[in-house]
Amino acid sequence: MQRADHDLAFMLQYENIAWYEDGKVKILDRRIYPAKVEFVTCHTHQEVAQAITDMVTQSAGPYTAVPMGMALAAHECRDKTAAEQMEYLRKAAHTISHARPTTVKRMALLCDLCLAEAERALAAGEDTAQAIVKKTVELNNTRYERVARIGKYLVDLFPENGTVMTHCFAETIVGMMLRECSERGKHIRLFCPETRPYFQGARLTATVCRDMGFDVTVISDNMPAFVMQREGVDVFTTAADAICCDGHVVNKVGTFQNAIVAKYMGIPYFVTGAPDQGHPTVDTVHIEMRDPNFTLQAMGVRTAAEGVKGYYPAFDITPPHLVSGVVTDLGIYSPYDLHRYFTDGHIDEHNLVV
Amino acid sequence: MQRADHDLAFMLQYENIAWYEDGKVKILDRRIYPAKVEFVTCHTHQEVAQAITDMVTQSAGPYTAVPMGMALAAHECRDKTAAEQMEYLRKAAHTISHARPTTVKRMALLCDLCLAEAERALAAGEDTAQAIVKKTVELNNTRYERVARIGKYLVDLFPENGTVMTHCFAETIVGMMLRECSERGKHIRLFCPETRPYFQGARLTATVCRDMGFDVTVISDNMPAFVMQREGVDVFTTAADAICCDGHVVNKVGTFQNAIVAKYMGIPYFVTGAPDQGHPTVDTVHIEMRDPNFTLQAMGVRTAAEGVKGYYPAFDITPPHLVSGVVTDLGIYSPYDLHRYFTDGHIDEHNLVV
Repeated sequence: MQRADHDLAFMLQYENIAWYEDGKVKILDRRIYPAKVEFVTCHTHQEVAQAITDMVTQSAGPYTAVPMGMALAAHECRDKTAAEQMEYLRKAAHTISHARPTTVKRMALLCDLCLAEAERALAAGEDTAQAIVKKTVELNNTRYERVARIGKYLVDLFPENGTVMTHCFAETIVGMMLRECSERGKHIRLFCPETRPYFQGARLTATVCRDMGFDVTVISDNMPAFVMQREGVDVFTTAADAICCDGHVVNKVGTFQNAIVAKYMGIPYFVTGAPDQGHPTVDTVHIEMRDPNFTLQAMGVRTAAEGVKGYYPAFDITPPHLVSGVVTDLGIYSPYDLHRYFTDGHIDEHNLVV
Repeated sequence: MQRADHDLAFMLQYENIAWYEDGKVKILDRRIYPAKVEFVTCHTHQEVAQAITDMVTQSAGPYTAVPMGMALAAHECRDKTAAEQMEYLRKAAHTISHARPTTVKRMALLCDLCLAEAERALAAGEDTAQAIVKKTVELNNTRYERVARIGKYLVDLFPENGTVMTHCFAETIVGMMLRECSERGKHIRLFCPETRPYFQGARLTATVCRDMGFDVTVISDNMPAFVMQREGVDVFTTAADAICCDGHVVNKVGTFQNAIVAKYMGIPYFVTGAPDQGHPTVDTVHIEMRDPNFTLQAMGVRTAAEGVKGYYPAFDITPPHLVSGVVTDLGIYSPYDLHRYFTDGHIDEHNLVV
């Protein structure tokens, strides 16, 4: 298994494990985790793209799965000429980056880095697939360091003893946030809406919280208002699939209504991440409509009768007036002032914060 | 099977079927309907109370199950003296009416009617159990007529072509509302949040809508804001477990946040039913906390890891400022003016509108 040898390497257990080895990419099947720990084995880069489309890996998982898919593509074309290999890899980059419509631009940036690395490796006579794997580990480490900084700024906003509500699975930042709480001795309990239809809140976020020793309660998605009102929730926080530069937050469906309810209750909503230059305004956002049958079942058991329709928008859009702050690796910004993020700090080459 | 011979008798198929016969009460197991049509057989009135506690029957179901349980109690004590029978029935009434804390007062009123009927039957030398069964049918017929009037007032508020969002299962009023739409030629499509953790919206409401020929879509409980915003929802409507005389609405958890979101969207929220004199103010409401394990599973399949807590408030409370109108059998009232309901019309002896 390819793992970063880094002080943040423990974080990998909370991300989708995906790695390239011997002409295959294995991806932890997040759809059935934690009930079962099973891996989907992809023998082609197209299968990696399909696994991402099929939600085998989610949230930050594709940040590893996508470049590992590029490593597999490099393996597939290893016997061609250098020019043919680059052509093959460019096509693979298109396929893999388009696995999910909401993240095309960010994944294309990531693929571009893999293409540049492949070009360098080819010129140097190195093993292209291995070079891309090594690059993936470096990118992850850079990302972990940035997420750790976000965690510090986020925990600054928590009380010494308090209650935090999440939504869906915020991936790396969940572990970073909790580690920061532990180090500072902040006593936080968490309420995690289960996040239908995939139950990421129940299955993933709650498991990470428990593993890190925190008091965590799973609620169904119709309970946030009750819990905010009765359980003294201090902060509502989520990550985002995209933070548009105009302050609109694209995140798992339900974020929007939880933010409306938080506003009603006077509870701040903090989103973690970084503004996405691929989305200068909300107009560039395409909401992915997934298989409607998912709302007609739960954990594989049919709930509704035949002839009833389903409906499944993967994301919703929270407008900036419901966002109390955008917590980035450079500090906390008003959602109306995100362009300052790009002038405040050094922007790294790929802007791949989650 | 005991059924009302009445033009509204078809409605029984949409309620919890419960009937007394030969020393037993059989109750449709609403927990597994519509996947399976099975009945729980109760051999004692205590088992009837337990079935109500265990959610075998829900919503308006107890309006039939409770008096049928009283009929069973009458059967149990049939060989005692008249005075002993009344004493036995009074104890049974206490047991049955306390099956669920939120509805104690209304169920106690219903039991009082059964006790009065038992007293009359004993004095007349009639079969007490059969007299209570007959009374139950009469009470249901009266209730159906009242609910039909509510349906007419509610449908007055719908556009000719429009979209309605529900929550949980509003029982009798769902069928009445849809029948009224059909008769008037109003073309309504429905969005039904699934209503975790029991999926009443997915399993029950959507099935009734489909059976009555309407376009119906099930969404998960994190989607109402998205759907209200994107699908042109005209009206949000629910029934209530209790409408307090001060305008607070007690209904299935999730109603509150859907009402907050509807208000944010400028969509009216209409609650159907009648003010409950058992709840002069919201201060009399006790929120029933149910088995927390229910939010750790879905359709019997575990979702969360061991060591994660669950949480399950059966109801929440929507304050009157989020309620656009209380739709009763006497017309539509402001939630701030519900006392007028009691001066406007003849209040029947038991006030058992659902």
